[in-house]
Amino acid sequence: MRRAIYPGSFDPVTNGHLDIIERAAALFDEVVVAVARDTPKAPLFPVAEREEMLREACAHLKNVKVESFSGLLVDFARSKQAKVIVKGLRAVSDFETELQMALMNRTLREEIETVFLMTRHEYLYLSSSIVKEIAGLGGEVGDFVPPMVKERLRQKLQCR
Amino acid sequence: MRRAIYPGSFDPVTNGHLDIIERAAALFDEVVVAVARDTPKAPLFPVAEREEMLREACAHLKNVKVESFSGLLVDFARSKQAKVIVKGLRAVSDFETELQMALMNRTLREEIETVFLMTRHEYLYLSSSIVKEIAGLGGEVGDFVPPMVKERLRQKLQCR
Amino acid sequence: MRRAIYPGSFDPVTNGHLDIIERAAALFDEVVVAVARDTPKAPLFPVAEREEMLREACAHLKNVKVESFSGLLVDFARSKQAKVIVKGLRAVSDFETELQMALMNRTLREEIETVFLMTRHEYLYLSSSIVKEIAGLGGEVGDFVPPMVKERLRQKLQCR
Amino acid sequence: MRRAIYPGSFDPVTNGHLDIIERAAALFDEVVVAVARDTPKAPLFPVAEREEMLREACAHLKNVKVESFSGLLVDFARSKQAKVIVKGLRAVSDFETELQMALMNRTLREEIETVFLMTRHEYLYLSSSIVKEIAGLGGEVGDFVPPMVKERLRQKLQCR
Amino acid sequence: MRRAIYPGSFDPVTNGHLDIIERAAALFDEVVVAVARDTPKAPLFPVAEREEMLREACAHLKNVKVESFSGLLVDFARSKQAKVIVKGLRAVSDFETELQMALMNRTLREEIETVFLMTRHEYLYLSSSIVKEIAGLGGEVGDFVPPMVKERLRQKLQCR
Amino acid sequence: MRRAIYPGSFDPVTNGHLDIIERAAALFDEVVVAVARDTPKAPLFPVAEREEMLREACAHLKNVKVESFSGLLVDFARSKQAKVIVKGLRAVSDFETELQMALMNRTLREEIETVFLMTRHEYLYLSSSIVKEIAGLGGEVGDFVPPMVKERLRQKLQCR
Repeated sequence: MRRAIYPGSFDPVTNGHLDIIERAAALFDEVVVAVARDTPKAPLFPVAEREEMLREACAHLKNVKVESFSGLLVDFARSKQAKVIVKGLRAVSDFETELQMALMNRTLREEIETVFLMTRHEYLYLSSSIVKEIAGLGGEVGDFVPPMVKERLRQKLQCR
Repeated sequence: MRRAIYPGSFDPVTNGHLDIIERAAALFDEVVVAVARDTPKAPLFPVAEREEMLREACAHLKNVKVESFSGLLVDFARSKQAKVIVKGLRAVSDFETELQMALMNRTLREEIETVFLMTRHEYLYLSSSIVKEIAGLGGEVGDFVPPMVKERLRQKLQCR
Repeated sequence: MRRAIYPGSFDPVTNGHLDIIERAAALFDEVVVAVARDTPKAPLFPVAEREEMLREACAHLKNVKVESFSGLLVDFARSKQAKVIVKGLRAVSDFETELQMALMNRTLREEIETVFLMTRHEYLYLSSSIVKEIAGLGGEVGDFVPPMVKERLRQKLQCR
Repeated sequence: MRRAIYPGSFDPVTNGHLDIIERAAALFDEVVVAVARDTPKAPLFPVAEREEMLREACAHLKNVKVESFSGLLVDFARSKQAKVIVKGLRAVSDFETELQMALMNRTLREEIETVFLMTRHEYLYLSSSIVKEIAGLGGEVGDFVPPMVKERLRQKLQCR
Repeated sequence: MRRAIYPGSFDPVTNGHLDIIERAAALFDEVVVAVARDTPKAPLFPVAEREEMLREACAHLKNVKVESFSGLLVDFARSKQAKVIVKGLRAVSDFETELQMALMNRTLREEIETVFLMTRHEYLYLSSSIVKEIAGLGGEVGDFVPPMVKERLRQKLQCR
Repeated sequence: MRRAIYPGSFDPVTNGHLDIIERAAALFDEVVVAVARDTPKAPLFPVAEREEMLREACAHLKNVKVESFSGLLVDFARSKQAKVIVKGLRAVSDFETELQMALMNRTLREEIETVFLMTRHEYLYLSSSIVKEIAGLGGEVGDFVPPMVKERLRQKLQCR
């Protein structure tokens, strides 16, 4: 069985992430969406809520599981007996960072392959950060995230 | 009448910004320089001082106004009945981010067009951040900002 | 009156070009689409046919004219009393070349401004070259060019 | 069964190509290396010889087949009942072109996914063109291609 | 005598830095490794420890000295009567920033030349930040830094 | 003695090339400007004329010699007992290609170092190709090349 890991902060999940998850689910026997507990910046949503949103958004995909992890991604991949890490490609600067991570991961654990998939046109420039920025300024984010994520963003940002 | 918005943090205004403002003022009937109240990082200059420096530096341009805004840029543009957002192009990484913002703004408000202008050769790699960094280390910034901005940077950084 | 020049080879015109022409027509009083007689490579369509396709595709835009030119673009702009050159932004490598041309044109004729507009998401990676390549291999190009261009491509490539 | 297509000119096959083929062979049930008959420039090696070199270099990979194709890649993929196109990622400019092709292929045939794999560090800047250039100038290409390709390059370039 | 400055945060020194130092030591009569006291973010290692690690790692290079500096790099270079600043080139985004710094330094002090050297293949995507990230997550960094740096990273990150 | 090689087609030499030659002449004991006999495209000027223009333009630099070469650059460098290849950095796409060549040259002959220098602001986007293009269209190239090169371009392009 070919199991793939799709890692990220998912703070929150966007339509771009979901597009990649669906593509990965069609390519591999099982996809584990791996939510990073350790994020460089303090996340807007706690890890449990990030997982919850992903589970709801992926409910229709039978071979997709959502889990969280800490420590090195390659160690998590190994513990799951996954040989493949899936990453979504977006803009160029992104590409450089992804390449760096992929080369590092290969050095750390040679048997794990990174596979890059391409999001749809309209998501090539989408990111969780820009969604939070727009939502924080009172903008409409319904084109970028699922309805329940939009609702949670509204609640979260209203509370502040 | 064609009114254009030129948004930014202007913390502080540089000769590169002024170059773009002059080019925009020649292209459009009116240019509103829009100073962002909401900045990702704490600004060095409060918004009132950033506006003041801009007003002084643009005093010779009769069709240029300086204002501040909060919330979404496209909402501010709309409230001003402006159909055009002007952005200055600099280096490549900059281009990616600008493209992202422009695509997002178009999704949020389709009727507003983003127009990119190119700064002069010598300003292609100039930014407010690098000016603050150089001034903070005691360097001479007279080639990069107007004299009164240089003086204010000196005062501001001395106080610290 | 603000007149703008939109230059290119248009061999043939694509939906991406038309998107830029419509945006320019909304921004300026008059837009002259300038078809280059001198192209680096031998064009697929003779200049008269490239102009004809453009005229047909732009018939609904009352302030758009189509002309051809040889020699320097800035000299043509000047002869038309146009102060603005419009260029469409696509991918990054494109951006570098566009920046080079714009800087050169500014050195050659300082009073002419280059203004960059951004195509829609789905045209960010579209070019006449790739359309000809796909059509040449028997592919369907109906999403990329107007119907009459598609028909002419079919005829042109069948004759060979 | 998951069948993947790995397309290219392979004029000639390099160690970078072989690295990608091995990675693809580990990820998919079957890999069809698809040698393009239609190349933008006249190839150094005729298609039969390019296939022959690939077959020899891939002899140890039981689930790899070598075939040539003309016409659209997505049509060839479809005729082979392959749902996946594999591409190797190298430098940034490369990335832009690959992204363009992948977006076009998706527009032409939505059900076919492009999957990007990353070559090893030492092949990130390797290409058939640079190998031919070095060999043509009398340089040693033993680090970049299999021994039999090196020998064929020597013969081919000597004859000229 | 040609003296060159190789500036950086070195928080901590990596094999990529050492590779550049060795190349610079072969090109110039003397190389001063200049450790920045002023760093944009709080460093993991205090400046004295960063210098110490560099001195140990460079002990075999007779024409290499390690010093720390504050203020502008070009002022430090001048105080050392150095006409050359050495920088290591890595990925593209890096290149843009390096170009910006080099252009600024030239504006500030025209007689000082910036010289770019290229690291080995395997260090093109290596940085102190990624080493700290991997070490912080419990990963093995022995391929990226000298043994004593690895040991200090272990101690430093354990204490936290 | 430190001897450096500065290779190129120099078809024709531009002010950007001369800027790099002057910088290199200040950094190294001797600079050999190496004019490539083998160029990917047919040159506008024969090799003898390209050398002649360079010799005239470099007459004031006592430690600069002009020679032509065929075959591999690293073999030429070695025959001259030069340990350094000098390259000028311009735009980003350029950087990628330069990095590729430098990595290849290092693989071919490890002891030869490639050193990148940065041209002045105004030459960052200058190339021989764009100078020929502008001159060919009747444009003024006096800002980009020395007067005698401008004169020769005029003669050469008139004859055609």
